[in-house]
Amino acid sequence: MSDLKSKFLEVYTSLKSELLNDPAFEFTDDSRQWVDRMLDYNVPGGKLNRGLSVIDSYKLLKEGKELTDDEIFLACALGWCIEWLQAYFLVLDDIMDNSQTRRGQPCWYKLPKIGLIAANDGVILRNHIPRILKKHFKGKPYYVDLLDLFNEVEFQTACGQMIDLITTLEGEKDLSKYSISLHHRIVQYKTAYYSFYLPDDYLDCFGAPEVIGKIGTDIEDFKCSWLVVKAMELSNDEQKKFLKENYGKADPTCVAKVKELYNALHLQDAFEEYESKSYEKLINSIEAHPSKAVQAVLKSFLAKIYKRQK
Amino acid sequence: MSDLKSKFLEVYTSLKSELLNDPAFEFTDDSRQWVDRMLDYNVPGGKLNRGLSVIDSYKLLKEGKELTDDEIFLACALGWCIEWLQAYFLVLDDIMDNSQTRRGQPCWYKLPKIGLIAANDGVILRNHIPRILKKHFKGKPYYVDLLDLFNEVEFQTACGQMIDLITTLEGEKDLSKYSISLHHRIVQYKTAYYSFYLPDDYLDCFGAPEVIGKIGTDIEDFKCSWLVVKAMELSNDEQKKFLKENYGKADPTCVAKVKELYNALHLQDAFEEYESKSYEKLINSIEAHPSKAVQAVLKSFLAKIYKRQK
Repeated sequence: MSDLKSKFLEVYTSLKSELLNDPAFEFTDDSRQWVDRMLDYNVPGGKLNRGLSVIDSYKLLKEGKELTDDEIFLACALGWCIEWLQAYFLVLDDIMDNSQTRRGQPCWYKLPKIGLIAANDGVILRNHIPRILKKHFKGKPYYVDLLDLFNEVEFQTACGQMIDLITTLEGEKDLSKYSISLHHRIVQYKTAYYSFYLPDDYLDCFGAPEVIGKIGTDIEDFKCSWLVVKAMELSNDEQKKFLKENYGKADPTCVAKVKELYNALHLQDAFEEYESKSYEKLINSIEAHPSKAVQAVLKSFLAKIYKRQK
Repeated sequence: MSDLKSKFLEVYTSLKSELLNDPAFEFTDDSRQWVDRMLDYNVPGGKLNRGLSVIDSYKLLKEGKELTDDEIFLACALGWCIEWLQAYFLVLDDIMDNSQTRRGQPCWYKLPKIGLIAANDGVILRNHIPRILKKHFKGKPYYVDLLDLFNEVEFQTACGQMIDLITTLEGEKDLSKYSISLHHRIVQYKTAYYSFYLPDDYLDCFGAPEVIGKIGTDIEDFKCSWLVVKAMELSNDEQKKFLKENYGKADPTCVAKVKELYNALHLQDAFEEYESKSYEKLINSIEAHPSKAVQAVLKSFLAKIYKRQK
């Protein structure tokens, strides 16, 4: 494990311990244990890309000047706030999408005795963010900006999730409503604002479950994904009819038929072309930025997601 | 309708219209309609006690000095933030408690085509609060304090809801874990911090559904309510056994048996005594406060809840 990652995980332990002893709430033993287990299960088990990027970016913006211990701790704490936000959304999204697995283990709400209590656990996760910010950033001149920023990003993500859910409801009546602009709007709000733009849909369908840690359900859930939009675009009338008959069905045979059509339409190639074109466009935009430090931050982000397998 | 209440409702219309045109999100027609309907269904249908209290309190603290239009608008906006917070918790709690009705209508998640999308609607409601605060209070010297206050109150309420849910899980194994101190802790965090202390449990069991607007489910849900704690305290061994056999069962016969026992133990009288003793204690504490204006605020609160029927 890199030094940075082990430092980052150390800060997790310290933040968790503060939260479990938060004076704003009188914990019972049961409730303290509950939160302890819930945090360990849901917060640190991902790739931590988003959280680690905060520290990477901060270093790049300091242009090589050594960070103090305090600065490293604060950058880690802020990185963890994004991971907490991610955990909050994943716990709730899994309930709403009726998902089974996440990060290579059963979804939290699927565990015995958890069930819909998970919805409140999601709320608790969300509430930990302002607790962390208050404890470590209150008094800094930018404290209120941090609060505003997290509020805005959460709002946009929730709105993106809303159009995803509503679109799926409406799409079930009429698949032809799925367009690339609608898809773009969903991912822009649902994913981009708290991380960065990328079509996660591709991995949902073609990613190996043992690598991505979950079994994708976009086809079963009738999601307006990049793949189905592209498939509708490339299909002839007969293929469109076939897609309408099989998309959004829980039956594994129907799911397999949709994937067969995706293959027949060479969607993997179409995606690769789309990915490399997007990459080129992004590199050009980045290199047009006047600051070399900002360029470095953005390129380091891009490197994390270009051609990713999980 | 009082002038105050009609002014308050006018401000709701204006806040809703701002939220439906929030530039931080590009609404589709479908999503704008969804939020519009969701707000009307969940936000303004309650007693509005908490929201109206903000304006009452502000007036009392100004000790009779006329409020400007701007001050009235801001007090109303802040009152609505509490109503939005309440709506957020009620939408999520109803899902977690498997409730059927709320405020005289089916719970939001029970409506056709809504289901678990309601969990995200809860999140949207919660996210509207910082949007309202940012739009109307950003730049005020106390803006950051408002953000901190709403965050703290939400955190405490979510923690109260957590011990309520965990207690119910644990209690199912052993009813004797239900004590008045545990009950006190639940209501303190779950209800008191965003409104004021009172045993809602009484109305859950003895309130008329057509008056309180919902069918209470505390007995079915094995809740650690004031009534069951008191019943355990007053019961002999045989009655305790009877309670253990019938409490927490969905079967209406069991619920009726529990209510019979409550009657046999004269819990209504016990509650009335508890209520009037609490009232006396509160009046004494209030009258010990040095400021007459603060006394007036607290007494106006108390009058709203003492001997309430809904």
